[in-house]
Amino acid sequence: MKIMGTIAVNMPTLTILSKEEIAYRFVIEAANLPGLTISSDFENCDIVLGEPTMIRNALAALPRLKWVQSTWAGVEPLLDPSLRRDYILTNARGVFGGLMSEFILGYLLAHERKIFQRVDAQKNKKWDKLPTGTLRGKTVGLLGVGSIGAEVARTAIFFGMNVRGFTRSSETCMYIDQYFHNGDLLKFAESLDYLIAILPNTKETRKIIHAEVFDVLPKHAVFINVGRGSAVDEHDLIEALEQNKIAAAVLDVFEQEPLPREHPFWETKNLTMTFHTSAPSFPEDIAKVFIENYRLYIEGKSLNYQVDFERGY
Amino acid sequence: MKIMGTIAVNMPTLTILSKEEIAYRFVIEAANLPGLTISSDFENCDIVLGEPTMIRNALAALPRLKWVQSTWAGVEPLLDPSLRRDYILTNARGVFGGLMSEFILGYLLAHERKIFQRVDAQKNKKWDKLPTGTLRGKTVGLLGVGSIGAEVARTAIFFGMNVRGFTRSSETCMYIDQYFHNGDLLKFAESLDYLIAILPNTKETRKIIHAEVFDVLPKHAVFINVGRGSAVDEHDLIEALEQNKIAAAVLDVFEQEPLPREHPFWETKNLTMTFHTSAPSFPEDIAKVFIENYRLYIEGKSLNYQVDFERGY
Repeated sequence: MKIMGTIAVNMPTLTILSKEEIAYRFVIEAANLPGLTISSDFENCDIVLGEPTMIRNALAALPRLKWVQSTWAGVEPLLDPSLRRDYILTNARGVFGGLMSEFILGYLLAHERKIFQRVDAQKNKKWDKLPTGTLRGKTVGLLGVGSIGAEVARTAIFFGMNVRGFTRSSETCMYIDQYFHNGDLLKFAESLDYLIAILPNTKETRKIIHAEVFDVLPKHAVFINVGRGSAVDEHDLIEALEQNKIAAAVLDVFEQEPLPREHPFWETKNLTMTFHTSAPSFPEDIAKVFIENYRLYIEGKSLNYQVDFERGY
Repeated sequence: MKIMGTIAVNMPTLTILSKEEIAYRFVIEAANLPGLTISSDFENCDIVLGEPTMIRNALAALPRLKWVQSTWAGVEPLLDPSLRRDYILTNARGVFGGLMSEFILGYLLAHERKIFQRVDAQKNKKWDKLPTGTLRGKTVGLLGVGSIGAEVARTAIFFGMNVRGFTRSSETCMYIDQYFHNGDLLKFAESLDYLIAILPNTKETRKIIHAEVFDVLPKHAVFINVGRGSAVDEHDLIEALEQNKIAAAVLDVFEQEPLPREHPFWETKNLTMTFHTSAPSFPEDIAKVFIENYRLYIEGKSLNYQVDFERGY
C-alpha cells in the first residue's frame, strides 16, 4: 500500500456507481466511517463502489483511483485487457452463499415435489397424486467449491443429501463427502442426481460442461448453472435436453445476457431460465463487505477478496 | 397388555392391508421378526398394518384383532364412533417431519423466488429480472408444534427465519423463538410472513383458521395447510384470497378429498393445491415404525404412538 499518499489514505473520497446508490449511501453513512467523504466528483475519487458495468464506463475518468469494490461476485467487465489495471479490485464474496442455497434448494425441491406438474393438474381440475420424491439420499455434485459451494454443500447435507465436490485441488470444506479433481470430471458426474455449476468465467472453466459430461449423467439428472454461462457448451446442452440424456436444466446464467430473443434456449424442452437472479446483491449485504474492507484500507492493510486480473477471480 | 393370551403375543399373525403390501412385506420379512407370521387369513389375524381406509372395511371380520398400526398419521376413518375400539390403534409418527419440511420449504422458496412468475416470463420470451426475495429474516408461524412442527421449525431456523409456535400448552421445541397459546391466536398471526397449519382433525382445531385470522395476517402473507382440511373455514379462505387479504395459499388437504370437481378452490385466485402429497408414507419409513412397535408388542410393553379414540390423535 506504499504507493498511496498519506492524505489519500486518511481522507479518501468514495464514489458510488450503482443502480442502488441511495441504499448504499444510506448504509455507509450510518456506519460513520472515519475520514470518508462520499462524492460524485470523479477528479477527487480514490475509491469506487459499484457495479462493474457502470464502473467500466467511468474508469478512464478517475485520475486518483486506487481501489474498486465491486458489488457483484463476477467482475468480467473490468477484466478486458484493454482496460487499466493500476488499482486494487475487490469483489463481493462471502455474502451469496445463503441466497444461492435458497435458489438451488428451491429448484431441487420444485423438481422432487413436481411443483410445475401439479400446477398443470390443478388447471385441468385433476386430483393428481403424482408420487413425490425426496432429497434425502440423493446425490448432488458441486462443480466449484468456494464460499458459495461450501454453503450449498452445508444446506444439501442438512436435507440428507450426499455431496460430491469437484475442485482444482483444495479439500477444505467439511460438508463435501467426496472430492474429485482435474482428470476425474466424468467420474465425478457419474450417477449424480443433480449437477450444480458454480464456476467463475476463466480459461479453465470454459465449456467444461459438454457432451461427454451429459453422456455420463443419468437420464433422471438435473443440471443447474448458477456460475457463468461460459462454463457450458450451449449446443451440447440443448442436444442433451432434446434427446432426454438428462431430465431437466435450470439456467440462471448465459453466454450472452440478456439472452437474445432468437436463442433456442427460450423454447428448449425441460429448460427453465431465471434471468441471472439467483443471488442478488442486496445493498445491506454488500455494504458490509465494503465497510470491512474500508477499515483495512485506511489502516494500510491488505484488502479482502482481491481479484487477480490475470486469473479472472 | 394382560388381555392378550400368551400364544397370540408370542406367535402373532400380521395382515397387511395396504396398496403397497408387497413393499411392506419385503421390508418386514427382511427384518426377521421373532415369531411373526404374515398372512391374509382374517380369522387368525392379531395385527393389522395398513391404510385406515382399507382397515375400516375389514374391521368387523377380524375376530382376534389386538393391534392396528396405521401407515398414515391421520386415522379419521377408524375414529367413527360406530366402529369397534377394542384394539390398540397406533399411527405413523416421527417419520413425516423431514418430508413435510421439504414440502413447506419448497413452496416457501417457490414464493420468495417467484418460480411461477419466472416460468411465465420465459413463455413470453421476456428477460424479466423480477426482484427476488429471501427467507432470511422472514417470520413463519406454526399452528401445531408436534414432531412435524418441530422439524419444520428446525429447517426454518436453518434458513435464518424467525419462528413462532402456537400450541395448546407445551413449549418443548428448542427451535421456536416465541410461543403462543389458546387466547392468543390473533396475536400469533399478526405480522407473519407465512402461516403454516399442521393440525390434526379434532373438535378444538375445527375451523380454527377463519376470517378473523385472515384479517390480521399481512396482505403479503402466504397460508399453507398440510394438516387437515377441517382446520380452515374454506369460505373465509376464498374470500381472503379473492379480496387480496393475503397473497397466496397452498393447500395440501381439504374438507373433502378428492376435492369435488365443482369446488371453487380449483379456480380460486392465488391458490395452489397439491392433492394430499406433502408427506407420503414411504414403506421403508413406516415399516421401521411397525418393526419397533412389534418388538415392544411381543415383550408386552406399551406401544409407541397410541391413538386416543376420543381425543382423535
